[in-house]
Amino acid sequence: MNLLEKTIQNIKAPDKEVYEAAKERLRNQARPSGSLGILEDVGARLAGIFSTLDVKLANKVVITCAGDHGICEEGVSLFPSDVTPQMIYNFVKWGASVNVLARHAGAEVKVADLGVACDFDPSLPIFHKKVRKGTSNFARGPAMTRDEAKKSIEAGIEIVEELLQNEPVHILGTGDMGIGNTTPSTAIIAVYSKLSVAELAGRGTGVDDDGLKRKITAIEKGLALNNPDPNDPIDVLSKVGGFEIGGLAGLVIAAAAYGIPVVCDGLISTAGALIACELAPAARNYLFAGHNSVEVGHAFMLKHLELYPLLDLKFRLGEGTGAALAMELIDAATRILIEIKTFEEVGIQDAQ
Amino acid sequence: MNLLEKTIQNIKAPDKEVYEAAKERLRNQARPSGSLGILEDVGARLAGIFSTLDVKLANKVVITCAGDHGICEEGVSLFPSDVTPQMIYNFVKWGASVNVLARHAGAEVKVADLGVACDFDPSLPIFHKKVRKGTSNFARGPAMTRDEAKKSIEAGIEIVEELLQNEPVHILGTGDMGIGNTTPSTAIIAVYSKLSVAELAGRGTGVDDDGLKRKITAIEKGLALNNPDPNDPIDVLSKVGGFEIGGLAGLVIAAAAYGIPVVCDGLISTAGALIACELAPAARNYLFAGHNSVEVGHAFMLKHLELYPLLDLKFRLGEGTGAALAMELIDAATRILIEIKTFEEVGIQDAQ
Repeated sequence: MNLLEKTIQNIKAPDKEVYEAAKERLRNQARPSGSLGILEDVGARLAGIFSTLDVKLANKVVITCAGDHGICEEGVSLFPSDVTPQMIYNFVKWGASVNVLARHAGAEVKVADLGVACDFDPSLPIFHKKVRKGTSNFARGPAMTRDEAKKSIEAGIEIVEELLQNEPVHILGTGDMGIGNTTPSTAIIAVYSKLSVAELAGRGTGVDDDGLKRKITAIEKGLALNNPDPNDPIDVLSKVGGFEIGGLAGLVIAAAAYGIPVVCDGLISTAGALIACELAPAARNYLFAGHNSVEVGHAFMLKHLELYPLLDLKFRLGEGTGAALAMELIDAATRILIEIKTFEEVGIQDAQ
Repeated sequence: MNLLEKTIQNIKAPDKEVYEAAKERLRNQARPSGSLGILEDVGARLAGIFSTLDVKLANKVVITCAGDHGICEEGVSLFPSDVTPQMIYNFVKWGASVNVLARHAGAEVKVADLGVACDFDPSLPIFHKKVRKGTSNFARGPAMTRDEAKKSIEAGIEIVEELLQNEPVHILGTGDMGIGNTTPSTAIIAVYSKLSVAELAGRGTGVDDDGLKRKITAIEKGLALNNPDPNDPIDVLSKVGGFEIGGLAGLVIAAAAYGIPVVCDGLISTAGALIACELAPAARNYLFAGHNSVEVGHAFMLKHLELYPLLDLKFRLGEGTGAALAMELIDAATRILIEIKTFEEVGIQDAQ
């Protein structure tokens, strides 16, 4: 049995008894029942994951997976591909957006190269997991081979395992960097949603009308040419995906297998989470949605995965920014569960 | 000139030049333009308020204003009025929901009695600003006199002034406690929105269908009987408002006059903010919306005040919970503005 199959088999269901005990405590707190909305559900789910009402998310890590995309040849992005490695240097120097928001949330940022189109110095403090220097242009053939697709997912699993060898991780955030990567993500969503590409395609980092047309044409061409099979998520990933998207799927599967809650970021991270949950539906129990991206396809995925986005601030950045910021709200949910006193504890008569 | 008039006159416009400089810095950061959505606007507004790009919100205070309501005689709430003082003791002992969320955000909670229907020990560490022990039942006459309405607003101003005598305040959150207070708040919104009471009325802390009918009937009766004049906000407050709602209006006016950003919470706090901005439109420049309440009338007020809610987590609690939690996002906005490097600072070519 290979690493992917083994990891999927290791995913256990969260503790239902503790989840129910958490729901009970939330109902008995000295406030109107249900009045802290979504954060009540988040708190109860975390209690189930950690088998305790007193969840402490001390070690937070955001992993930003990077890769380049052959589809950029079709003129789908505003930025040139060499911005991908430049941003990796920026992440490592803690000057990028995700670094700032992670610092704010008390989280570390770790960067992983799944398939950036350049050679990094092996001493650069990132996870070196390059599958290949960028995918092939999926408007002219499959983005990668089936073996490469599996390798990218297993790289994500290896990252989590290497991380856990050095430190405990209580919550994982996923993020992406890869010029052009809203294009493969949108292609993946089109496969699962059956919505038209024209309906789904967004402006990514901000392409103009012509760029958007090129993006739609490229995706339509790629889907017609490669005919990805939605019943085979690895086929979808290999035909129209990206190396970092495979890595992001691997992170979600590994987090679930090791009992770690995982917050996905926007369009690309959620496309990775979608692939993960198609491969391993039980992983969804460990998944939280950081925010609501402005990209149209994101809303479809959240609905499909039955996730409620914690933030809705019109972010469209990626990197893990929405996941990092949402970690503070998830922290708040753990405090709500354990720290707010019950009617009995404060000696007030409940209304019911 | 009385305290209210004097305070309104002291409200200055934020620094437009620094606001524009902030917008410029945000545009030049090494990320797609506009990609951090609402938090970019929040950061720029704070820069304008404090006349610097390097805003530090070190001292955060949430003020929870409490009052009781004669309208409870009409059976509009699930809880009895004596829960109001019980919750005040709970706030003071730091066991309530707002305490937990404020602690999470690094904020203090201060409680103010604007009109609770009991006698508190003068040594209780709260702002003692009781106008009267509960409003009159506005389904049978005005909730309070015009003088009492002014007094409640001025009490809110005094609270901010007393607070500032002891410590600097960099951001103020507003919150409420008062059994039955979604009823006067909804009445105020009905006056300004011209929407029907049946459309606006929500379930507050969770009344059933019969309770909701009683609430609608009570508000309709009160509006028909008292005929509040929307062009005279003090008339509206006195006819169908509440003492804590007046206090909340005073907090907003005083915060604006002292150049302090103020985050309003849900339905009741925003009703106070609405009264404040009707009296002093310039106060809106200092106002931020903490969250989107599930109460229908809240959305009207946010639109009317042109505020975008930072959180949308289906909270319906009050106390200042949404304001406290939103303070973390506002903090994040200050970091985004100053800490994310520009394209020039990191040596990456901008796409534009």
